[in-house]
Amino acid sequence: MNLNMQMKPKALGRISTKGLTQEEIQDIKFMKAAITQARKAYVLGEVPIGCVIVYEGKIIGRGYNRRNTDKTTLAHAEITAIKRAGKVIGDWRLEGCKLYVTLEPCQMCAGAIVQARIPEVIMAAENPKAGCAGSVLDILNNPGFNHQVQVKRGVLKDECAKMLKEFFVELRARNKAEKELKSSQGLDEN
Amino acid sequence: MNLNMQMKPKALGRISTKGLTQEEIQDIKFMKAAITQARKAYVLGEVPIGCVIVYEGKIIGRGYNRRNTDKTTLAHAEITAIKRAGKVIGDWRLEGCKLYVTLEPCQMCAGAIVQARIPEVIMAAENPKAGCAGSVLDILNNPGFNHQVQVKRGVLKDECAKMLKEFFVELRARNKAEKELKSSQGLDEN
Repeated sequence: MNLNMQMKPKALGRISTKGLTQEEIQDIKFMKAAITQARKAYVLGEVPIGCVIVYEGKIIGRGYNRRNTDKTTLAHAEITAIKRAGKVIGDWRLEGCKLYVTLEPCQMCAGAIVQARIPEVIMAAENPKAGCAGSVLDILNNPGFNHQVQVKRGVLKDECAKMLKEFFVELRARNKAEKELKSSQGLDEN
Repeated sequence: MNLNMQMKPKALGRISTKGLTQEEIQDIKFMKAAITQARKAYVLGEVPIGCVIVYEGKIIGRGYNRRNTDKTTLAHAEITAIKRAGKVIGDWRLEGCKLYVTLEPCQMCAGAIVQARIPEVIMAAENPKAGCAGSVLDILNNPGFNHQVQVKRGVLKDECAKMLKEFFVELRARNKAEKELKSSQGLDEN
């Protein structure tokens, strides 16, 4: 592997919308926009997670994971999208908004979604190890809180899961190559 | 009530540290700093919640609730303090840090604390209706996540609970006065 080469996600295959309802076609359209965001994270060598927030049929907030790049845990895709959508709406309450995300939200992002009163989340791949839309905890739908979120699962989940898998394969290969390079340089110095 | 008057928190009474350990005295010192932050929120008419993050005995991040002022749910005290501490540490991992907060964290802030790998939280008042350090959920100590947080409870809890109670009494009186003023103006117009 050439270490100077930028990490590059594979192109999204053609997605058929034949026989789907208008709502399903809309969901695919906005999840594709979230994937476009995730691909920006991939190029940076960040775990490819992307998010868009939609209000009255228009995207009003976009975000992608930049945790290592920005050196803050607050650079998760959903947090950035919530911040931007809030500026458009002019309120901390994102009522009437739909949040599309390529991976099941973590505990922080699920918490932010509830706090921002977002009524609906559409997610792609599940995150069995850390997801908080039902996998480890269900923060989005907890009757103990003052807001519950309607969740739609699995929209373009195969595409998003595949992108994550490819990313980790590429990342491991890259890390291995870097380690070998460092090791060989260490031998040269002795 | 004079509606032009700024909301003003009462002064913190004298706190005795007689017979306390050095660690307990440190905890009181930093919780007082968190209360100073909370008082800034009070003055803005925001629910008075304050937070400081301490690293190697020094405060490296401060925050207070500005949710209505900044029109974003991301303006919670803990989120602002985490953002600032991250800039000082230069990493999204806030390892070796202690977070002091005047009220039990919500689901978003508890999630951010876990995501930022903060090892210890010292909190004052509990939040039975929305707290996520054990009240509604225990996000800080969930064995399903890859990080668990050590929690110390009740440091200056009476002082923080009293401040919150006084704030809500004052806010209700203010809201009532505003409503009466609007109502009387409405009558004048007719």
